[in-house]
Amino acid sequence: MKNLWNRIREAAPLIHGITNYVTINDVANVLLACGASPIMAEAPQEAAEICAGCDGLLLNLGMPRPDKLEAMILAGREANRLKIPVVLDPVGVGASAYRMDSVSRLLREVSFSIIRGNLSEIQTLCRNTSSRGVDACREEGTTEDALLGLAKELAHQTKAIIALTGPTDVITDGDRTYSVYNGCPMLSKITGSGCMLSALTAACVAASPQDPLMAAVTAVTAMGVCGETATNRMTEQDGNGSFRVYLLDAVFRLTGDELEVKARYET
Amino acid sequence: MKNLWNRIREAAPLIHGITNYVTINDVANVLLACGASPIMAEAPQEAAEICAGCDGLLLNLGMPRPDKLEAMILAGREANRLKIPVVLDPVGVGASAYRMDSVSRLLREVSFSIIRGNLSEIQTLCRNTSSRGVDACREEGTTEDALLGLAKELAHQTKAIIALTGPTDVITDGDRTYSVYNGCPMLSKITGSGCMLSALTAACVAASPQDPLMAAVTAVTAMGVCGETATNRMTEQDGNGSFRVYLLDAVFRLTGDELEVKARYET
Amino acid sequence: MKNLWNRIREAAPLIHGITNYVTINDVANVLLACGASPIMAEAPQEAAEICAGCDGLLLNLGMPRPDKLEAMILAGREANRLKIPVVLDPVGVGASAYRMDSVSRLLREVSFSIIRGNLSEIQTLCRNTSSRGVDACREEGTTEDALLGLAKELAHQTKAIIALTGPTDVITDGDRTYSVYNGCPMLSKITGSGCMLSALTAACVAASPQDPLMAAVTAVTAMGVCGETATNRMTEQDGNGSFRVYLLDAVFRLTGDELEVKARYET
Repeated sequence: MKNLWNRIREAAPLIHGITNYVTINDVANVLLACGASPIMAEAPQEAAEICAGCDGLLLNLGMPRPDKLEAMILAGREANRLKIPVVLDPVGVGASAYRMDSVSRLLREVSFSIIRGNLSEIQTLCRNTSSRGVDACREEGTTEDALLGLAKELAHQTKAIIALTGPTDVITDGDRTYSVYNGCPMLSKITGSGCMLSALTAACVAASPQDPLMAAVTAVTAMGVCGETATNRMTEQDGNGSFRVYLLDAVFRLTGDELEVKARYET
Repeated sequence: MKNLWNRIREAAPLIHGITNYVTINDVANVLLACGASPIMAEAPQEAAEICAGCDGLLLNLGMPRPDKLEAMILAGREANRLKIPVVLDPVGVGASAYRMDSVSRLLREVSFSIIRGNLSEIQTLCRNTSSRGVDACREEGTTEDALLGLAKELAHQTKAIIALTGPTDVITDGDRTYSVYNGCPMLSKITGSGCMLSALTAACVAASPQDPLMAAVTAVTAMGVCGETATNRMTEQDGNGSFRVYLLDAVFRLTGDELEVKARYET
Repeated sequence: MKNLWNRIREAAPLIHGITNYVTINDVANVLLACGASPIMAEAPQEAAEICAGCDGLLLNLGMPRPDKLEAMILAGREANRLKIPVVLDPVGVGASAYRMDSVSRLLREVSFSIIRGNLSEIQTLCRNTSSRGVDACREEGTTEDALLGLAKELAHQTKAIIALTGPTDVITDGDRTYSVYNGCPMLSKITGSGCMLSALTAACVAASPQDPLMAAVTAVTAMGVCGETATNRMTEQDGNGSFRVYLLDAVFRLTGDELEVKARYET
């Protein structure tokens, strides 16, 4: 994990992001904070060409629009052709039929290295892509076992690493599984902690494309550790405005050694 | 006012925002700061469906575009059908004929609970929607009486609560009127204080839809109080960068009790 | 330089920005920090009308899209007609043929007062607009002489002031040249320092349209000085999150006197 995190600063991967506008600035700054570089480009006219010059591709479904979806598919196919790793963040996929249709099309036309989502998003994907129907992904609980079942199911369906984040994070390739216990409640009090995590995931896997499972584990753990660091820094006057600043600062300052010491995960 | 503010954290309303990109991150974070949750969606393909799952709708006219306007109308009609409160922020409506035409169409096709704007925006709306012509809204002064006349006129025309913000804020349903004296000059030194206020207004009215007048008064007062809190926190090195962070922090920390103590308004 | 900087707060110019969404909030806030005001408008339906009411126009090529390009051309032509100064920031112009084509069209249809870019962007522009072909702008080095040659060449081609920023900044009208030595490495660790500098440049030239060369020198120097101020304020816990806040604060606090004392440049 230590080497994987340090590898980002050594490789300084360039990440092509097609992402929502709510958190686009945070996504760009968190990429710079961890040692990567961002380039945002969402016109179909340039999406494939921009992607071809990058080390990783981040597709974030927030605020979808037809031309952005087209750009995602063009960039995604080019990334697949050039073996550039692609990360999908299916933001709010359960909120509308349009988002579900968009993700379904993405999953048909692009191969993803890693899919990073919360429980509701992963459930929605699982339900909609399963050939065994709804029963394959029962929703009756959010026990760790239930989360694990969902994530494994989707990993088998998509052949991607699944990073299901929540109070406990579960990362699996369908066979090997990690649980990560780092994190803090404040992460849900700012917009963009999920988007930033997906960006970190893209940076990790772009710097270490040979090990997407550990790349996802490293990103998830790093975000949790940085959330804890930022929370510890808060004073009585601070709220989610300062937390957002401290979170970026924490990513900027995080070393591989510190990550290894503070990481709480098990296989 | 105390109960109305606390009600946001209890109800945790989900607010659908169609808003400008300059301040979209601030709008999302201020909603989280006050206890609400944001979802941003502006594709006509999903606007009505997203809105139907929410507790309030925020339409902010900054950076208008034809497809966004169409999404606003689809979401607004659905909100009206489902009796979900809708807040309009007519950003820069006087700056172009296109913005004025867009707002005129919105006012024809959607019923608003609350319209929140500054003097210039409310004047422009009043002038353009008045059946009595320009004279109905004379611009000769910005005395409190003049502001009140404008706001009442527009309230009667639109059947919405009008929140006209400036050095003194005036909130009226056309009959009952409140003046709010909280606020600070720094609020005009960041982009987005108006957009954030409109978001708080949407959160307040979504949590207490039965009382849109007091919801608007509460939001306006809360923003003024938080501006004062943020100003008091500034050091000699701080500028509008820190003020923006402190403002979000202040909203995050504001309790109903504190709001009631610091509120300066009269009916 | 002192008077030029102070002139922004006196004139309070209104800047029309058509810019990318990654840094649009920073661009708006830095304009407010220096004493200008922003209005963002990118629909072709209103671009010319909005521009006509402003004192300066900022065209930033990040995240290009066909309708935004059309708006840029409409606003740019109107600015030229009304003698409103126009600043171009050719963000990532070398990253795709679409960006290069977009800039080529802008350079054909709009006259710019100032073009602000980094080495790679200025090189790309120089190579593509030169009637003497690639040889006119050799890339063999980044010595100060090489930078100067590039900037002068592009200044002659475009009849615009060229501000080429990097470790050393070079500003030239093709005949007179300034080198600026202010700045700090942290400026490259946040997204948007280039975009913010281009916004400051637009504010400076809008407030002092009679002297675009010194306006560009003043903006570049001010950004460098503010980067130094922000760096000096950083603690051991701070990263690029805090730096971004401190940078805006520094612009907000910068006086003409302080700028003159801290400026390090030569002609």
